Formats: sequence, structure tokens, C-alpha cells
Amino acid sequence: MTKKIVIVGGVAGGASAAARARRLSEDADIIVFERDSFISFANCGLPYHIGGEIEDRDALLVQTPESMKARFNLDIRIQSEVIGVDAERQEVTVRELASGREYSERYDDLILSPGAVPIVPPIPGVDSESVFTLRNIPDMDRIIRKINIEAPRSAVVVGGGYIGIEMAEALIHRGIETTMVELANQIMPPMDPEMAVPLHQEMRRNGVRLQLSDALEKVEETAEGLELSMRSGRSLQTDMVILAIGVRPENTLATMAGLAIGEKGGIQVDRTMKTSQPNIWAVGDAVEVRDFVTGAPAQIPLAGPANRQGRIAADNIFDLHSEYKDTQGTGICKVFELSAASTGASEKMLVAQGIDYEKIYVHGADHAGYYPGATQVHLKLVFDPKNGRVLGAQAVGAKGVDKRIDVLATAIRGGMTVFDLEEFELCYAPPFGSAKDVINQAGFVASNLCRGEHAVCHAEDLPEFSDDVVLVDVRNPTEITVLGSIDGSVNIPVNSLRDNLDRLPKDKTLVVYCAVGLRGYVAYRMLKNLGYQVKNMTGGYTTYQMVKRIGQ
Amino acid sequence: MTKKIVIVGGVAGGASAAARARRLSEDADIIVFERDSFISFANCGLPYHIGGEIEDRDALLVQTPESMKARFNLDIRIQSEVIGVDAERQEVTVRELASGREYSERYDDLILSPGAVPIVPPIPGVDSESVFTLRNIPDMDRIIRKINIEAPRSAVVVGGGYIGIEMAEALIHRGIETTMVELANQIMPPMDPEMAVPLHQEMRRNGVRLQLSDALEKVEETAEGLELSMRSGRSLQTDMVILAIGVRPENTLATMAGLAIGEKGGIQVDRTMKTSQPNIWAVGDAVEVRDFVTGAPAQIPLAGPANRQGRIAADNIFDLHSEYKDTQGTGICKVFELSAASTGASEKMLVAQGIDYEKIYVHGADHAGYYPGATQVHLKLVFDPKNGRVLGAQAVGAKGVDKRIDVLATAIRGGMTVFDLEEFELCYAPPFGSAKDVINQAGFVASNLCRGEHAVCHAEDLPEFSDDVVLVDVRNPTEITVLGSIDGSVNIPVNSLRDNLDRLPKDKTLVVYCAVGLRGYVAYRMLKNLGYQVKNMTGGYTTYQMVKRIGQ
Repeated sequence: MTKKIVIVGGVAGGASAAARARRLSEDADIIVFERDSFISFANCGLPYHIGGEIEDRDALLVQTPESMKARFNLDIRIQSEVIGVDAERQEVTVRELASGREYSERYDDLILSPGAVPIVPPIPGVDSESVFTLRNIPDMDRIIRKINIEAPRSAVVVGGGYIGIEMAEALIHRGIETTMVELANQIMPPMDPEMAVPLHQEMRRNGVRLQLSDALEKVEETAEGLELSMRSGRSLQTDMVILAIGVRPENTLATMAGLAIGEKGGIQVDRTMKTSQPNIWAVGDAVEVRDFVTGAPAQIPLAGPANRQGRIAADNIFDLHSEYKDTQGTGICKVFELSAASTGASEKMLVAQGIDYEKIYVHGADHAGYYPGATQVHLKLVFDPKNGRVLGAQAVGAKGVDKRIDVLATAIRGGMTVFDLEEFELCYAPPFGSAKDVINQAGFVASNLCRGEHAVCHAEDLPEFSDDVVLVDVRNPTEITVLGSIDGSVNIPVNSLRDNLDRLPKDKTLVVYCAVGLRGYVAYRMLKNLGYQVKNMTGGYTTYQMVKRIGQ
Repeated sequence: MTKKIVIVGGVAGGASAAARARRLSEDADIIVFERDSFISFANCGLPYHIGGEIEDRDALLVQTPESMKARFNLDIRIQSEVIGVDAERQEVTVRELASGREYSERYDDLILSPGAVPIVPPIPGVDSESVFTLRNIPDMDRIIRKINIEAPRSAVVVGGGYIGIEMAEALIHRGIETTMVELANQIMPPMDPEMAVPLHQEMRRNGVRLQLSDALEKVEETAEGLELSMRSGRSLQTDMVILAIGVRPENTLATMAGLAIGEKGGIQVDRTMKTSQPNIWAVGDAVEVRDFVTGAPAQIPLAGPANRQGRIAADNIFDLHSEYKDTQGTGICKVFELSAASTGASEKMLVAQGIDYEKIYVHGADHAGYYPGATQVHLKLVFDPKNGRVLGAQAVGAKGVDKRIDVLATAIRGGMTVFDLEEFELCYAPPFGSAKDVINQAGFVASNLCRGEHAVCHAEDLPEFSDDVVLVDVRNPTEITVLGSIDGSVNIPVNSLRDNLDRLPKDKTLVVYCAVGLRGYVAYRMLKNLGYQVKNMTGGYTTYQMVKRIGQ
């Protein structure tokens, strides 16, 4: 019997499900309803077309309804909103937006891929025509029209996540004075606050005014544009506002159909992507997933997972029994000349969920330091100190950040440990890496720690130290002159330590540090072997400075 | 009791062992003997200093004897050659090269890290002063002196491995007409011949004359420079020759000490890096390792493994019981604007060892095609068709090659399968990747194959086909006009297939192909579901062209 599959939403998850369904069955009836005029468009490219990097708007239209139809023999109905689901009768109600005509369509299997909608806070004035969100092609067109026709001189981006950051960069590229307002004390929420510090600096270096720990409370239209009132009491004059606070799952239809919904509003599905109702499946940004590392329910709106889920739902409709294996949340964002990426759990996530962890930092070159153009990669690794299992990683730098996080994402997916990282054989030639890659280095540091060969302390624990602690800066004096040092530390360069042992008390704890932790480790081992009580500050002065500047 | 550790060789493995030994014990006596004047230098950077990318020669001297001494309290004796080992008495004989003085030194533990020596074939005239090898700083200095003083107009590089390729590029950068002679029908021996084809093109595009399947048989000094006679009967006039045929393990001392030596000349060690004699350890290019994938004995002279082995030998001397976990041979080479990388087993290696495998190709963009600057990554994956285990991978492209091979190296290390590759969550934003990364794509293709959802055929099998086969080119006619097509194929674009089914016989095997394999797969599924006998050519016309041009 011919199967009739109805898909609600023709982007990412929906489009992938439709294509996969057709590949699995040539005779299925496959109908895709899409509220907008566009299917399978390059959502993630929108800010880059606004900023001008992607010149051709058509480049964003990865598939058109016509091309999808031709290739996959789909019945694609755009500008058609599914406004009701009758799970009992296996029927959806559809409204043609142009004509207003409503009709119903039966299904054997229904796949919901409604996506997510931008969060718009209920504050006065937020419905102004100069306040924008960015989720789809029409949103993008509206912003471009505003910029091209009215030539705004200033803009305020509310929210420092992926889209907020990309929009701030796009606006700066268009020559618009840009302010970013973020409620938290950091941008890039998947990362921990100290890792966001270089990003704050990079945003400011490129002219973005950053207003952290503040929130938009009121929008007023004035003769000059908009007047924004902030929670801090400050007010801002601007010509336009981009709201990039985040998204929430579009669950209207799902609720209507009586599907189980998670605490954060995501449609609940099992590993086959089946909802709580028979023959109804859900995929993409609208569903609740399980976090691969912590096992906790999560909302992670990313394109890769959406595509995979679409494929899996189609597989299961045709009894191929494939399962979705949770989401790690691997993500990356270009922040002007830097990139920032993360995978797995962040420290703050582990703290919030009460999961035991340890962390280390390394700051290493993206490729051999003696080959031109090497830049520093700041890498933070969180892991289980009992068995060394890698729980998460974050990296910031000008180059090679995507590579390191991809490798660590793979390690996490494979359930690998910090001991495995020591042994990774990665590509090495001077233009590409180092014989001891940043990832190997992170493995060394973390493994030594797990094995009890290396006791570390963290920059944020320093204020707790007392008179029983001596801070030893093992860098060279010139480094201290240029970069400064931690108050109260004594300077004994690592290469002179053996000649200055008389300056170090054996009845106190020594905390050693260098620039990034490597010389500190050499000093640590030497002093430890000589019978001192000693700890090495992981990530050295570089991490210390990041921690000290949290929220700045 | 104070341990006395003697280390022969102060580069890579030896230097790592010395540093690790000191970190483990502050009171051990650690003596490092080095025949040359340099320790721990950047071996891999030598061609780049010759080519001029690395301007400062001192940048290659990662550590000096003085700096190593100061940091690690080592007794480093340069220009000191260990000329004898008495394993019974635990004693080495040392010759000071400057004075000729010989003396002996007792050891508790001896670590051999003598490295490898360039292979110089026993052909007439090879001892000419205009024939060079490149392994260390003095070799490099000699080549630079030749170039700077004599301004040679032409050079011949013999051997197309890493060093040969890097030297050819360096010579071209120095404005020297360069010819490369290679015995095999391909350069970059760790890769399969079809994957080397883009590298041949890149070498020629940059002015290197490539003479494959040929060998140097005689060198004669003439008034104009050198006259080289080739096996092919050709002769070449040139000003200098770089021999980059490969290296063999330096096993003189080991043989003298009666250590077990493998078939290829490598010192045999167990997983703790212990040789066949008590208290003698060996590390680095001189030892025989086990191939991680095939389990076969192998000689893999790479810096990363050497460093790890040095560390492990030191660990075991201090009873830390660490084990070396075999070598994958992950490697990368810059070839002008391209990079070429590989990890694990190549197809030819699997064939040679009679290991069952299957292979697929994907040719995908390094990042989202709609974001500027995307280039193609050619990826070949070999895997076990029974369980999907990834056995090896090779990639060539302008960007993102190191990243893909690093991820796949990690997957191999973790014993992961092509089914895992489907689910990898890798960094995605338009400047960095794609929602379906090349690696995911490779996972899709290989997994579909393992699951029996996708029957592929290989380009090299085409000539075996007969009248029972119909070749169907599913690309658009414009692509065929520009790039050509396979003789005898019929063209029916994938989007028109359903309207042209009458042109396809059900009693013959259809072999479909597109540019890279994706549309071919869509066509395959459609035709398969319609009851046709069909196969898709993996990697499409792109792979076909690479295979057709093997040896060119």
C-alpha cells in the first residue's frame, strides 16, 4: 500500500526527511507544507548576506520548491500553513495563506519540523518597525531594506549568542555603529565566562560597544529613531534594534495535537524521533533532545542535528529502525578575526547539574611556532577526574579552532579519555600543526593530573590563599615587565630555580605559574621531587588574566 | 640509589626522553650524547628555511644544549659519538669528535634514539659534491651554501615523498628549475595512486617537471654541472641533485649491542620501548613499530611518535608502566597551494596484506558552498565492509584537509565505524564547515553501502563491463560540455530520470554516475526502488578522472 507522508516545515529537518523518504520509497506520497515561500534555505548564511560577504541572495536558496520537486518528486505546497492536527483521524488542516482557503489532508505518517521562533520579550515598544528579529529570508530582506533605504547610522543588537555576534559583525561591515546588550556577564553562552573574555576584546577592537549584564526594558520611537531604556538605568539612542535573545521551540501545532512537551517547550520524542502519538514524528529545532554528555533534556537548535533527525524519522517510517544518538551541541562562531567553538559540556553546565569534573587550560600555537603565521589557540578541557573521560572542550583563537574542537567532539562521541588524547596521532607538518599538538598537550596535562603526577590550582582559587602560600612566577623578568604579574608573587625563572631553592620555604604551599603552564609544570615536577608542597596554576598567567577579566 | 641514564641522540625521541626522565626524578644522572652540534632541532622545518619561508635559521633550533641543560639539569655532550655498547657491562664507548679521545661511560639504563639516515643508492657518481641529502642542520647549511654561492639554475629531486615534495617547492621558491624523478607511478607514497593525481597536477602547475616511473642510475660531473642517466634511457643536465628517496633506521649501535632487529632494519622493542636486552631501550625513527590498523611491523619515521616513545621509555625506566600503542602513520604534506594528508591504512597496503576492505570517495566543499572561498576536499575512505570499522583515510584539497584527517585519525584511534561518522557533530557555521560535513557525507555513503542500501562500483572496474551494462550519466548537459564524460554513457539528468524510464532497460545493469556521487546516489535509489539492477559509481566523474590519470 502506498504510504502518505505529510511533512510540516520544509527547512533543514523537514527537507532532509522528505529527501530521505523519497530515496527509501519511489511510490510514497510525500507532501511538504511550508508556511513561507522558501524551503531548505541557508538559514546560517543570513547574517553574511546582510554583512555583504555573501553577495548573491540566491546563493542562500540551496533548494527551491521547483528543484526539490524535480529531484525528489515531492508535493511541495508553500505559503500553506498547517493550522490543526487531528491525531485520531490522522488528518491535518491546512490554510492557503494567499487565498485563505482551508482544507484537510489525511496522513499515514506526519513529520513535524516547525522549527523555532525568535524570543521577543514582552517589553513596551518592542513591536516598533525598527525592531527586527532574524530567522528566515523575509526577516533578512526586511533588515537589508532598512539598511539600504534608511542608511541607519547606529544599531543595537540585543543578545550575544551566535546570531547576535554574527549580526554585530555584519552591521559593522555595513559601517553601522553597533552596540551589543547582553543580560549575562559574557557573550557566546555555550562557553564559560573566562573563555568569552578574548571575544569581548575582539568585539571591542572591531568597534562594537559591549554592554554586558544589562537588559533592554523599553523601546520608544522618537523623532531621531529609537530611545532604548536599559535595566541599568542607562538609555541609548539608536536607529534600529536586532533582537537576538534566542529561540523557543515552535510547539503550537504539537500542543494542539496533544503531544507531550518538555519543560523548555520542546516536543518530546523517543530515539526514533517518534512523539507521544502514534504516527506522528518530530524533528529539528522544535524537539527536545538529550544531551550526549550529561543525559539531561536540552534544546539545541542546530542544523546538523536537525538534518540527521529528519533522516532518522524517515528511516523509521519505513521500518529501518535507526536511532538518534543525542546531541553534543558542537558549535562554532566567527567573531571578526577570531573563532570560538565548543563541544560537549561547559563547566557552568556541569556545575549546574552537580556533575563532578576537573578542568585544565592550554594555550598553544595552531602550528609550529617557527613556521610563519602561528597564532595562539586557547583551549579549555573539562573531564571526569576519576576515569579521565572527556566531558567538554572550548577553544578560542585566530586559526585551527574548528579543527581542535572537531577532534575533541569526535573523542567525546567515542567515549574517549584524556589518556587517549595523549596518544592522538594528528597531522603534523610545520604549516599545519605541531609534533605535540595542542590536543596532545591538553592530554598530557589532564592525564598527569588524573594520574596524580601533577597537582594544579585554578586562577579563581587564588584569592582564597593565605600566608601559608607562596606564589612563584617562573617566567623571565622581561615577560613580567611586558605583561605584568600576580600581586605578591616572587619571580624565579624556571631555569634558575635550582640555584634559588633557599628562597623557597618547605613548610608552605608553593603555587608556581608561567605564561601558559608548561614551564610551571617543569618547575612543579622539580620542586615536587625535591620534597616541596607545590601546585601549578593551570593555563598560567594567560588563564589568570582571562579569569580576572570575566564580565569585562 | 641514583639512577644513571645514558641517552644516545638528542633530537625528538632522545630529547623527549631526557626531559621526561628529569621531570620524574630530580636526582637521576642523565647524560645525552649527540654526534652533531645540535639537539632538539626542528627537523621538519629544514626545507622551509631553504625555501625562505622560515627566514631565521635560529628559529629551527628549538632547544640549544645550553637551554636544555639549564632547564633540565642534563649532562649534554655534543659532537660525541657513541661507538660501542657493552650490554653485559652496561657501558658505552664514546668518541669525542673534536679531539678523537675515546672513553667509556657506565649506565643503569640506556636509551637509543639514533634516528634514521637518508638512503643513498649505490650508483656511480652519487658521491659528487653536488649531490645532497637533507636530514639535519649541516645538510641544510650545505644546500643553502650551494644555492647562495653557486646560484644553480636547475635541480633534480630524486624521490617524491614528504621531503622530496617539500624540497621541490623550496627550490621553485628559490627560482630554480626543478625536476622530480620518482620510481613509482605516483608521488606521496602513503597515498593511493589516484589520490596523488591532483598533486601531480599541482606540482606541474607550479613548474616542477615530474618524471614518474623512472630512476636515477648514474651521475657524472661535467663542465656544465651534472649529467644524470635515467633507467628510462633519458638523460638530464642539472646543477644539483637532492636525494630524497627515503630513510633507513640507524641500527649500527643496536647491531653491535646484539639487539634484535626487524626485517626492515628497525630495532625491535616491546610496548614499553624495551629492546631485546635488559636496560636498553630504543625510541624514534630507528625502531620498528606495529601498524595500528593492520598490526604488521612498520617503519614510520615521524616526529609525534618519536616524542611519545621517548616519554614512554622514560616512564618505564621509572616503573610507571606506560605503553606505546602503535603507530597510525598520520601525515600531511603541503604541496604548493594544496595539502595532502592520510591516516591509517591505504588501499594498496590493505591489498598487499590481503585484508578485506571496501572504499568510497566523496568530493565536498571545505565549508558551505554559499560562503565565499569554498574549495573541494577530495576524500577517500577505506573501511571493513563487514562491521564498518574505519581502516584509513586520505584527503587532498586547498583547505580543511588537516581537519578532516585529524578527525578520521581520532575515529580510527577510537575504533569507530562508518556508522559513527554519520553522527559526528562537527563545528558548523558557513565559514568553517557544512551542516553535512564531508566526513558525515563519507559516513552516509559508506554506511549505506554496509547496510546494503547502496551498491557502488569503482571507476577502475568499468573496463570489465560488457554489453550487459548501460552507463548513465545523470549530470546536466552543460557539465558534460565543460568536463567531458565517459565514452559510451547516455546522458539523462537526475531530475529528468522519471520522465525517461523508457530509455533504461530492466534486463541490463545500469551504472549511474554524476560529478561526485550524490546525484548518482539519488538516481540509484530511485532506479533501485523501481526494480532496476543498478550501481552508482562512487566519487562520480571526479574520481573517474583521477583513476584514469594514474601515473600521469
